[in-house]
Amino acid sequence: MSWTWGIHPVEALLDESPDRVQELWIVQSRRPGPARVRVRDRAQAANVRFRMVTDAQLRGAVGDVNHQGVAARVTEFEYADAEPLLEAEGPGLIVVLDEVQDPHNLGAVLRSARAFGARAVVIPKHRSASVTPAAIRVAAGAAETLPVARVTNLARFVEAARDHGWWSYATVVEGGEPLDRMPMADRAVLILGSERRGVRPGLLDVCDAKLTLPIDGVESLNVSVAAGIFVWEWAKMVAAEGPEST
Amino acid sequence: MSWTWGIHPVEALLDESPDRVQELWIVQSRRPGPARVRVRDRAQAANVRFRMVTDAQLRGAVGDVNHQGVAARVTEFEYADAEPLLEAEGPGLIVVLDEVQDPHNLGAVLRSARAFGARAVVIPKHRSASVTPAAIRVAAGAAETLPVARVTNLARFVEAARDHGWWSYATVVEGGEPLDRMPMADRAVLILGSERRGVRPGLLDVCDAKLTLPIDGVESLNVSVAAGIFVWEWAKMVAAEGPEST
Repeated sequence: MSWTWGIHPVEALLDESPDRVQELWIVQSRRPGPARVRVRDRAQAANVRFRMVTDAQLRGAVGDVNHQGVAARVTEFEYADAEPLLEAEGPGLIVVLDEVQDPHNLGAVLRSARAFGARAVVIPKHRSASVTPAAIRVAAGAAETLPVARVTNLARFVEAARDHGWWSYATVVEGGEPLDRMPMADRAVLILGSERRGVRPGLLDVCDAKLTLPIDGVESLNVSVAAGIFVWEWAKMVAAEGPEST
Repeated sequence: MSWTWGIHPVEALLDESPDRVQELWIVQSRRPGPARVRVRDRAQAANVRFRMVTDAQLRGAVGDVNHQGVAARVTEFEYADAEPLLEAEGPGLIVVLDEVQDPHNLGAVLRSARAFGARAVVIPKHRSASVTPAAIRVAAGAAETLPVARVTNLARFVEAARDHGWWSYATVVEGGEPLDRMPMADRAVLILGSERRGVRPGLLDVCDAKLTLPIDGVESLNVSVAAGIFVWEWAKMVAAEGPEST
Protein backbone atom coordinates (compact mmCIF):
# COMPACT_ATOMS: atom_id res chain seq x y z
CA MET A 1 0.00 0.00 0.00
CA SER A 2 1.34 3.46 -0.81
CA TRP A 3 0.26 7.03 -1.36
CA THR A 4 0.03 9.06 -4.53
CA TRP A 5 -0.58 12.80 -4.29
CA GLY A 6 -0.98 15.90 -6.39
CA ILE A 7 -3.90 16.91 -8.63
CA HIS A 8 -2.77 15.39 -11.94
CA PRO A 9 -1.51 12.04 -10.61
CA VAL A 10 -4.64 11.57 -8.50
CA GLU A 11 -6.93 12.54 -11.39
CA ALA A 12 -5.13 10.09 -13.66
CA LEU A 13 -5.55 7.37 -11.04
CA LEU A 14 -9.27 8.06 -10.75
CA ASP A 15 -9.70 8.06 -14.50
CA GLU A 16 -7.66 5.02 -15.35
CA SER A 17 -7.39 2.76 -12.32
CA PRO A 18 -10.09 3.68 -9.81
CA ASP A 19 -9.99 0.07 -8.61
CA ARG A 20 -6.50 0.65 -7.25
CA VAL A 21 -7.64 3.56 -5.05
CA GLN A 22 -8.37 2.30 -1.57
CA GLU A 23 -9.11 5.70 -0.15
CA LEU A 24 -8.99 9.28 -1.29
CA TRP A 25 -8.17 12.13 1.05
CA ILE A 26 -9.09 15.72 0.19
CA VAL A 27 -8.02 18.66 2.32
CA GLN A 28 -11.03 20.72 3.35
CA SER A 29 -10.93 24.47 3.14
CA ARG A 30 -13.41 27.30 3.08
CA ARG A 31 -12.92 27.87 -0.60
CA PRO A 32 -11.80 24.66 -2.28
CA GLY A 33 -10.33 25.48 -5.69
CA PRO A 34 -11.79 24.08 -8.91
CA ALA A 35 -9.14 21.34 -9.07
CA ARG A 36 -10.23 19.86 -5.75
CA VAL A 37 -13.88 20.08 -6.76
CA ARG A 38 -13.00 18.21 -9.94
CA VAL A 39 -11.21 15.49 -7.99
CA ARG A 40 -14.20 15.08 -5.69
CA ASP A 41 -16.60 14.84 -8.63
CA ARG A 42 -14.46 12.24 -10.35
CA ALA A 43 -14.21 10.23 -7.18
CA GLN A 44 -17.99 10.25 -6.86
CA ALA A 45 -18.42 9.28 -10.50
CA ALA A 46 -15.96 6.39 -10.05
CA ASN A 47 -17.51 5.26 -6.78
CA VAL A 48 -14.31 5.91 -4.88
CA ARG A 49 -14.76 6.63 -1.21
CA PHE A 50 -13.25 9.93 -0.14
CA ARG A 51 -12.65 11.61 3.14
CA MET A 52 -12.27 15.29 3.97
CA VAL A 53 -9.21 15.88 6.15
CA THR A 54 -7.11 18.74 7.45
CA ASP A 55 -3.82 19.71 5.91
CA ALA A 56 -2.11 18.41 9.06
CA GLN A 57 -3.81 15.02 8.74
CA LEU A 58 -2.76 14.70 5.13
CA ARG A 59 0.80 15.68 5.94
CA GLY A 60 0.76 13.14 8.73
CA ALA A 61 0.04 10.48 6.13
CA VAL A 62 2.18 11.54 3.18
CA GLY A 63 4.86 13.75 4.73
CA ASP A 64 5.97 17.21 3.80
CA VAL A 65 5.28 17.11 0.09
CA ASN A 66 3.47 19.32 -2.40
CA HIS A 67 0.21 17.35 -2.17
CA GLN A 68 -1.98 20.10 -3.66
CA GLY A 69 -4.74 19.12 -1.26
CA VAL A 70 -5.36 15.57 -2.48
CA ALA A 71 -3.83 12.16 -1.90
CA ALA A 72 -4.89 8.62 -2.72
CA ARG A 73 -3.95 5.43 -0.92
CA VAL A 74 -3.37 2.87 -3.62
CA THR A 75 -2.64 -0.80 -3.85
CA GLU A 76 0.83 -1.66 -5.06
CA PHE A 77 1.60 -1.07 -8.69
CA GLU A 78 0.51 -4.01 -10.82
CA TYR A 79 3.17 -5.07 -13.22
CA ALA A 80 2.23 -6.51 -16.59
CA ASP A 81 3.31 -9.92 -17.86
CA ALA A 82 6.14 -9.69 -20.34
CA GLU A 83 5.18 -12.56 -22.65
CA PRO A 84 1.84 -11.17 -23.95
CA LEU A 85 3.57 -7.89 -24.77
CA LEU A 86 5.75 -9.78 -27.22
CA GLU A 87 2.94 -11.87 -28.62
CA ALA A 88 0.73 -8.94 -29.58
CA GLU A 89 0.89 -8.34 -33.32
CA GLY A 90 1.60 -5.27 -35.42
CA PRO A 91 4.01 -2.39 -35.03
CA GLY A 92 5.11 -1.47 -31.56
CA LEU A 93 7.96 -0.17 -29.47
CA ILE A 94 9.04 -1.67 -26.17
CA VAL A 95 11.45 0.37 -24.07
CA VAL A 96 13.83 -1.64 -21.88
CA LEU A 97 15.70 0.07 -19.05
CA ASP A 98 18.80 -1.82 -17.95
CA GLU A 99 19.41 -1.11 -14.26
CA VAL A 100 18.23 2.49 -14.26
CA GLN A 101 18.09 3.11 -10.53
CA ASP A 102 16.68 6.59 -10.15
CA PRO A 103 12.86 6.44 -9.82
CA HIS A 104 12.63 9.95 -11.24
CA ASN A 105 14.35 8.81 -14.41
CA LEU A 106 12.10 5.76 -14.58
CA GLY A 107 9.02 7.95 -14.17
CA ALA A 108 10.22 10.42 -16.78
CA VAL A 109 10.83 7.59 -19.25
CA LEU A 110 7.30 6.27 -18.64
CA ARG A 111 5.94 9.72 -19.37
CA SER A 112 7.78 10.10 -22.70
CA ALA A 113 7.17 6.48 -23.71
CA ARG A 114 3.44 6.92 -23.17
CA ALA A 115 3.41 10.30 -24.90
CA PHE A 116 4.84 8.91 -28.14
CA GLY A 117 2.93 5.66 -28.21
CA ALA A 118 5.38 3.03 -26.94
CA ARG A 119 3.64 -0.24 -26.09
CA ALA A 120 5.34 -0.96 -22.78
CA VAL A 121 8.39 -0.49 -20.59
CA VAL A 122 10.37 -3.47 -19.30
CA ILE A 123 12.73 -3.37 -16.33
CA PRO A 124 14.76 -6.04 -14.56
CA LYS A 125 13.57 -7.42 -11.23
CA HIS A 126 16.87 -6.63 -9.55
CA ARG A 127 19.09 -3.56 -9.34
CA SER A 128 16.46 -1.34 -10.94
CA ALA A 129 14.19 1.40 -9.74
CA SER A 130 10.67 0.03 -9.46
CA VAL A 131 7.40 1.85 -10.03
CA THR A 132 7.35 3.63 -6.68
CA PRO A 133 4.99 6.48 -5.80
CA ALA A 134 7.82 8.86 -6.73
CA ALA A 135 8.12 7.28 -10.17
CA ILE A 136 4.34 7.35 -10.60
CA ARG A 137 4.26 11.03 -9.72
CA VAL A 138 6.99 11.95 -12.18
CA ALA A 139 5.27 9.85 -14.85
CA ALA A 140 2.41 12.37 -14.67
CA GLY A 141 -0.34 9.89 -15.46
CA ALA A 142 1.59 7.52 -17.72
CA ALA A 143 2.00 4.81 -15.08
CA GLU A 144 -1.78 4.39 -15.05
CA THR A 145 -2.04 3.38 -18.69
CA LEU A 146 1.36 2.16 -19.87
CA PRO A 147 2.14 -1.49 -19.03
CA VAL A 148 5.39 -1.99 -17.13
CA ALA A 149 6.77 -5.52 -16.92
CA ARG A 150 9.56 -6.87 -14.74
CA VAL A 151 11.71 -9.74 -15.93
CA THR A 152 14.49 -11.71 -14.28
CA ASN A 153 16.84 -11.69 -17.23
CA LEU A 154 16.80 -8.92 -19.83
CA ALA A 155 19.03 -10.77 -22.30
CA ARG A 156 16.60 -13.68 -22.30
CA PHE A 157 13.73 -11.22 -22.81
CA VAL A 158 15.46 -9.73 -25.85
CA GLU A 159 16.02 -13.21 -27.26
CA ALA A 160 12.37 -14.10 -26.72
CA ALA A 161 11.46 -10.86 -28.49
CA ARG A 162 13.49 -11.95 -31.51
CA ASP A 163 11.51 -15.20 -31.65
CA HIS A 164 8.37 -13.08 -31.91
CA GLY A 165 9.66 -10.98 -34.78
CA TRP A 166 11.04 -8.02 -32.87
CA TRP A 167 14.30 -6.21 -33.61
CA SER A 168 16.44 -4.98 -30.75
CA TYR A 169 18.46 -1.76 -30.52
CA ALA A 170 20.88 -0.95 -27.74
CA THR A 171 21.68 2.70 -27.21
CA VAL A 172 25.35 3.46 -26.60
CA VAL A 173 27.09 6.77 -25.89
CA GLU A 174 29.55 6.23 -28.71
CA GLY A 175 30.36 3.75 -31.44
CA GLY A 176 26.82 2.90 -32.54
CA GLU A 177 25.08 3.87 -35.74
CA PRO A 178 23.97 7.50 -35.61
CA LEU A 179 20.25 7.48 -34.88
CA ASP A 180 19.45 9.72 -37.85
CA ARG A 181 21.04 7.23 -40.27
CA MET A 182 19.62 3.95 -38.96
CA PRO A 183 15.90 3.32 -39.42
CA MET A 184 14.41 1.20 -36.67
CA ALA A 185 12.08 -1.70 -37.39
CA ASP A 186 8.39 -1.11 -36.76
CA ARG A 187 8.53 -3.88 -34.13
CA ALA A 188 11.39 -2.53 -32.07
CA VAL A 189 12.83 -3.18 -28.63
CA LEU A 190 14.89 -0.20 -27.51
CA ILE A 191 17.37 -0.74 -24.67
CA LEU A 192 18.79 2.10 -22.57
CA GLY A 193 21.28 1.65 -19.76
CA SER A 194 22.03 3.61 -16.64
CA GLU A 195 23.84 6.91 -17.09
CA ARG A 196 26.84 5.64 -15.22
CA ARG A 197 27.34 2.23 -16.79
CA GLY A 198 25.31 2.12 -19.98
CA VAL A 199 23.84 -1.11 -21.31
CA ARG A 200 25.69 -4.08 -19.81
CA PRO A 201 27.95 -6.07 -22.18
CA GLY A 202 25.99 -9.33 -21.90
CA LEU A 203 22.87 -7.52 -23.00
CA LEU A 204 24.66 -5.57 -25.74
CA ASP A 205 25.78 -8.86 -27.23
CA VAL A 206 22.27 -10.11 -27.92
CA CYS A 207 21.00 -6.90 -29.53
CA ASP A 208 20.67 -6.61 -33.29
CA ALA A 209 22.23 -3.16 -33.54
CA LYS A 210 23.70 -0.31 -31.53
CA LEU A 211 22.43 3.23 -31.87
CA THR A 212 24.10 6.46 -30.83
CA LEU A 213 22.85 10.00 -30.52
CA PRO A 214 25.63 12.21 -31.85
CA ILE A 215 26.38 14.69 -29.08
CA ASP A 216 29.12 17.16 -28.32
CA GLY A 217 30.48 18.88 -25.24
CA VAL A 218 28.93 16.62 -22.60
CA GLU A 219 29.65 12.98 -21.88
CA SER A 220 26.08 11.81 -22.18
CA LEU A 221 22.46 12.87 -22.14
CA ASN A 222 20.07 12.36 -19.27
CA VAL A 223 18.57 8.90 -19.81
CA SER A 224 15.01 10.22 -19.92
CA VAL A 225 15.94 12.84 -22.52
CA ALA A 226 17.71 10.20 -24.62
CA ALA A 227 14.70 7.89 -24.28
CA GLY A 228 12.38 10.72 -25.32
CA ILE A 229 14.36 11.37 -28.50
CA PHE A 230 14.60 7.69 -29.46
CA VAL A 231 10.89 7.09 -28.90
CA TRP A 232 9.99 10.26 -30.78
CA GLU A 233 12.11 9.18 -33.75
CA TRP A 234 10.51 5.75 -33.77
CA ALA A 235 7.01 7.22 -33.61
CA LYS A 236 7.73 9.60 -36.48
CA MET A 237 9.12 6.78 -38.59
CA VAL A 238 6.12 4.53 -38.03
CA ALA A 239 3.71 7.38 -38.74
CA ALA A 240 5.54 8.23 -41.96
CA GLU A 241 5.77 4.66 -43.23
CA GLY A 242 2.16 3.72 -42.87
CA PRO A 243 1.47 0.13 -43.96
CA GLU A 244 4.24 -2.32 -43.19
CA SER A 245 6.94 -3.26 -45.67
CA THR A 246 8.57 -6.65 -46.02
CA MET B 1 30.66 31.68 -3.54
CA SER B 2 29.27 28.17 -3.78
CA TRP B 3 30.31 24.53 -4.01
CA THR B 4 30.25 22.15 -6.94
CA TRP B 5 30.88 18.47 -6.31
CA GLY B 6 31.08 15.14 -8.07
CA ILE B 7 33.78 13.86 -10.43
CA HIS B 8 32.32 15.00 -13.78
CA PRO B 9 31.18 18.48 -12.73
CA VAL B 10 34.51 19.17 -11.02
CA GLU B 11 36.50 17.85 -13.96
CA ALA B 12 34.48 20.01 -16.33
CA LEU B 13 35.14 23.01 -14.11
CA LEU B 14 38.89 22.34 -14.10
CA ASP B 15 38.94 21.90 -17.87
CA GLU B 16 36.80 24.84 -18.85
CA SER B 17 36.83 27.42 -16.09
CA PRO B 18 39.77 26.80 -13.78
CA ASP B 19 39.74 30.53 -13.01
CA ARG B 20 36.42 30.12 -11.25
CA VAL B 21 37.78 27.50 -8.86
CA GLN B 22 38.83 29.16 -5.61
CA GLU B 23 39.74 25.94 -3.89
CA LEU B 24 39.53 22.24 -4.58
CA TRP B 25 38.97 19.68 -1.84
CA ILE B 26 39.83 16.03 -2.39
CA VAL B 27 38.98 13.36 0.18
CA GLN B 28 42.08 11.41 1.11
CA SER B 29 41.96 7.67 1.39
CA ARG B 30 44.44 4.83 1.39
CA ARG B 31 43.59 3.84 -2.13
CA PRO B 32 42.30 6.86 -4.03
CA GLY B 33 40.51 5.67 -7.19
CA PRO B 34 41.63 6.68 -10.68
CA ALA B 35 38.98 9.40 -10.88
CA ARG B 36 40.37 11.23 -7.87
CA VAL B 37 43.91 10.86 -9.21
CA ARG B 38 42.72 12.36 -12.48
CA VAL B 39 41.12 15.30 -10.69
CA ARG B 40 44.31 15.95 -8.76
CA ASP B 41 46.40 15.82 -11.94
CA ARG B 42 44.10 18.20 -13.73
CA ALA B 43 44.16 20.59 -10.80
CA GLN B 44 47.95 20.57 -10.86
CA ALA B 45 48.02 21.11 -14.59
CA ALA B 46 45.61 24.03 -14.26
CA ASN B 47 47.48 25.53 -11.31
CA VAL B 48 44.46 25.15 -9.06
CA ARG B 49 45.26 24.85 -5.39
CA PHE B 50 43.89 21.70 -3.80
CA ARG B 51 43.64 20.42 -0.29
CA MET B 52 43.36 16.85 1.00
CA VAL B 53 40.52 16.56 3.52
CA THR B 54 38.56 13.89 5.35
CA ASP B 55 35.14 12.78 4.26
CA ALA B 56 33.74 14.44 7.38
CA GLN B 57 35.39 17.76 6.51
CA LEU B 58 33.99 17.67 3.01
CA ARG B 59 30.52 16.81 4.28
CA GLY B 60 30.83 19.67 6.72
CA ALA B 61 31.28 21.98 3.77
CA VAL B 62 28.85 20.60 1.19
CA GLY B 63 26.34 18.62 3.24
CA ASP B 64 25.17 15.05 2.86
CA VAL B 65 25.48 14.70 -0.89
CA ASN B 66 27.05 12.23 -3.30
CA HIS B 67 30.31 14.21 -3.61
CA GLN B 68 32.37 11.28 -4.96
CA GLY B 69 35.36 12.53 -2.99
CA VAL B 70 35.83 15.89 -4.66
CA ALA B 71 34.35 19.36 -4.34
CA ALA B 72 35.31 22.77 -5.66
CA ARG B 73 34.53 26.14 -4.18
CA VAL B 74 33.67 28.38 -7.10
CA THR B 75 32.89 31.98 -7.71
CA GLU B 76 29.32 32.70 -8.69
CA PHE B 77 28.19 31.69 -12.14
CA GLU B 78 29.02 34.32 -14.71
CA TYR B 79 26.12 35.07 -16.98
CA ALA B 80 26.74 36.04 -20.57
CA ASP B 81 25.53 39.26 -22.19
CA ALA B 82 22.48 38.72 -24.34
CA GLU B 83 23.19 41.25 -27.08
CA PRO B 84 26.41 39.69 -28.48
CA LEU B 85 24.62 36.35 -28.73
CA LEU B 86 22.20 37.90 -31.17
CA GLU B 87 24.87 39.78 -33.10
CA ALA B 88 27.00 36.74 -33.86
CA GLU B 89 26.49 35.64 -37.46
CA GLY B 90 25.60 32.33 -39.06
CA PRO B 91 23.25 29.53 -38.07
CA GLY B 92 22.50 29.11 -34.43
CA LEU B 93 19.86 28.11 -31.93
CA ILE B 94 19.09 30.04 -28.76
CA VAL B 95 16.91 28.31 -26.19
CA VAL B 96 14.73 30.59 -24.07
CA LEU B 97 13.15 29.28 -20.87
CA ASP B 98 10.15 31.31 -19.75
CA GLU B 99 9.90 31.10 -15.95
CA VAL B 100 11.11 27.54 -15.59
CA GLN B 101 11.59 27.41 -11.84
CA ASP B 102 13.07 24.00 -11.14
CA PRO B 103 16.90 24.18 -11.18
CA HIS B 104 17.01 20.49 -12.16
CA ASN B 105 14.99 21.23 -15.28
CA LEU B 106 17.20 24.21 -16.06
CA GLY B 107 20.31 22.07 -15.64
CA ALA B 108 18.89 19.28 -17.80
CA VAL B 109 18.03 21.78 -20.54
CA LEU B 110 21.58 23.15 -20.46
CA ARG B 111 22.91 19.61 -20.84
CA SER B 112 20.76 18.81 -23.90
CA ALA B 113 21.24 22.25 -25.44
CA ARG B 114 25.01 21.86 -25.19
CA ALA B 115 24.90 18.29 -26.46
CA PHE B 116 23.17 19.25 -29.70
CA GLY B 117 25.03 22.46 -30.37
CA ALA B 118 22.70 25.25 -29.24
CA ARG B 119 24.47 28.58 -29.02
CA ALA B 120 23.10 29.74 -25.68
CA VAL B 121 20.27 29.59 -23.17
CA VAL B 122 18.40 32.72 -22.09
CA ILE B 123 16.34 33.03 -18.92
CA PRO B 124 14.47 35.92 -17.35
CA LYS B 125 15.95 37.72 -14.35
CA HIS B 126 12.82 37.19 -12.27
CA ARG B 127 10.65 34.17 -11.45
CA SER B 128 13.14 31.75 -12.98
CA ALA B 129 15.54 29.18 -11.65
CA SER B 130 19.05 30.56 -11.89
CA VAL B 131 22.28 28.68 -12.52
CA THR B 132 22.66 27.36 -8.98
CA PRO B 133 25.11 24.63 -7.97
CA ALA B 134 22.22 22.16 -8.30
CA ALA B 135 21.58 23.26 -11.88
CA ILE B 136 25.30 23.13 -12.65
CA ARG B 137 25.50 19.59 -11.30
CA VAL B 138 22.55 18.36 -13.35
CA ALA B 139 23.99 20.09 -16.42
CA ALA B 140 26.87 17.58 -16.19
CA GLY B 141 29.53 19.93 -17.55
CA ALA B 142 27.36 21.98 -19.91
CA ALA B 143 27.19 25.02 -17.62
CA GLU B 144 30.94 25.41 -18.00
CA THR B 145 30.86 25.94 -21.75
CA LEU B 146 27.36 27.02 -22.76
CA PRO B 147 26.64 30.74 -22.34
CA VAL B 148 23.59 31.52 -20.24
CA ALA B 149 22.20 35.06 -20.35
CA ARG B 150 19.60 36.70 -18.12
CA VAL B 151 17.34 39.39 -19.46
CA THR B 152 14.72 41.58 -17.83
CA ASN B 153 12.11 41.17 -20.52
CA LEU B 154 11.93 38.09 -22.72
CA ALA B 155 9.46 39.60 -25.19
CA ARG B 156 11.85 42.46 -25.79
CA PHE B 157 14.68 39.96 -26.26
CA VAL B 158 12.68 38.10 -28.90
CA GLU B 159 11.95 41.36 -30.70
CA ALA B 160 15.63 42.28 -30.62
CA ALA B 161 16.40 38.83 -32.03
CA ARG B 162 14.09 39.53 -34.95
CA ASP B 163 16.02 42.71 -35.71
CA HIS B 164 19.14 40.57 -35.99
CA GLY B 165 17.60 38.10 -38.42
CA TRP B 166 16.42 35.43 -36.02
CA TRP B 167 13.12 33.57 -36.21
CA SER B 168 11.28 32.74 -33.01
CA TYR B 169 9.31 29.60 -32.18
CA ALA B 170 7.17 29.17 -29.08
CA THR B 171 6.44 25.62 -28.00
CA VAL B 172 2.85 24.98 -26.96
CA VAL B 173 1.22 21.81 -25.66
CA GLU B 174 -1.50 21.98 -28.28
CA GLY B 175 -2.59 24.07 -31.24
CA GLY B 176 0.82 24.74 -32.75
CA GLU B 177 2.26 23.35 -35.96
CA PRO B 178 3.41 19.77 -35.45
CA LEU B 179 7.19 19.86 -35.09
CA ASP B 180 7.70 17.26 -37.80
CA ARG B 181 5.89 19.40 -40.36
CA MET B 182 7.41 22.81 -39.63
CA PRO B 183 11.05 23.37 -40.54
CA MET B 184 12.78 25.81 -38.23
CA ALA B 185 15.01 28.57 -39.56
CA ASP B 186 18.74 28.07 -39.19
CA ARG B 187 18.83 31.15 -36.96
CA ALA B 188 16.20 30.13 -34.47
CA VAL B 189 15.08 31.23 -31.03
CA LEU B 190 13.15 28.42 -29.34
CA ILE B 191 10.96 29.36 -26.37
CA LEU B 192 9.75 26.83 -23.78
CA GLY B 193 7.53 27.67 -20.84
CA SER B 194 7.11 26.13 -17.43
CA GLU B 195 5.28 22.80 -17.27
CA ARG B 196 2.47 24.33 -15.31
CA ARG B 197 1.80 27.50 -17.26
CA GLY B 198 3.51 27.17 -20.61
CA VAL B 199 4.83 30.20 -22.49
CA ARG B 200 3.11 33.34 -21.21
CA PRO B 201 0.63 35.02 -23.62
CA GLY B 202 2.57 38.27 -23.95
CA LEU B 203 5.58 36.33 -25.10
CA LEU B 204 3.57 34.03 -27.38
CA ASP B 205 2.28 37.11 -29.18
CA VAL B 206 5.70 38.24 -30.35
CA CYS B 207 6.83 34.83 -31.62
CA ASP B 208 6.82 34.05 -35.34
CA ALA B 209 5.26 30.61 -34.98
CA LYS B 210 4.00 28.07 -32.49
CA LEU B 211 5.27 24.48 -32.48
CA THR B 212 3.72 21.43 -30.85
CA LEU B 213 5.02 17.95 -30.20
CA PRO B 214 2.13 15.61 -30.95
CA ILE B 215 1.66 13.53 -27.81
CA ASP B 216 -0.98 11.20 -26.48
CA GLY B 217 -2.02 9.91 -23.09
CA VAL B 218 -0.25 12.49 -20.93
CA GLU B 219 -0.91 16.19 -20.61
CA SER B 220 2.61 17.29 -21.43
CA LEU B 221 6.21 16.24 -21.58
CA ASN B 222 8.85 17.10 -19.05
CA VAL B 223 10.28 20.45 -20.19
CA SER B 224 13.81 19.11 -20.45
CA VAL B 225 12.66 16.16 -22.59
CA ALA B 226 10.69 18.52 -24.84
CA ALA B 227 13.70 20.83 -25.09
CA GLY B 228 15.93 17.87 -25.96
CA ILE B 229 13.67 16.82 -28.83
CA PHE B 230 13.31 20.34 -30.25
CA VAL B 231 17.05 21.00 -30.12
CA TRP B 232 17.80 17.58 -31.63
CA GLU B 233 15.41 18.29 -34.52
CA TRP B 234 16.95 21.68 -35.14
CA ALA B 235 20.47 20.22 -35.11
CA LYS B 236 19.49 17.47 -37.57
CA MET B 237 17.91 19.99 -39.89
CA VAL B 238 20.91 22.29 -39.92
CA ALA B 239 23.27 19.36 -40.47
CA ALA B 240 21.15 18.09 -43.37
CA GLU B 241 20.77 21.46 -45.06
CA GLY B 242 24.38 22.40 -45.18
CA PRO B 243 24.95 25.84 -46.75
CA GLU B 244 22.25 28.40 -46.05
CA SER B 245 19.30 28.99 -48.32
CA THR B 246 17.68 32.34 -48.99
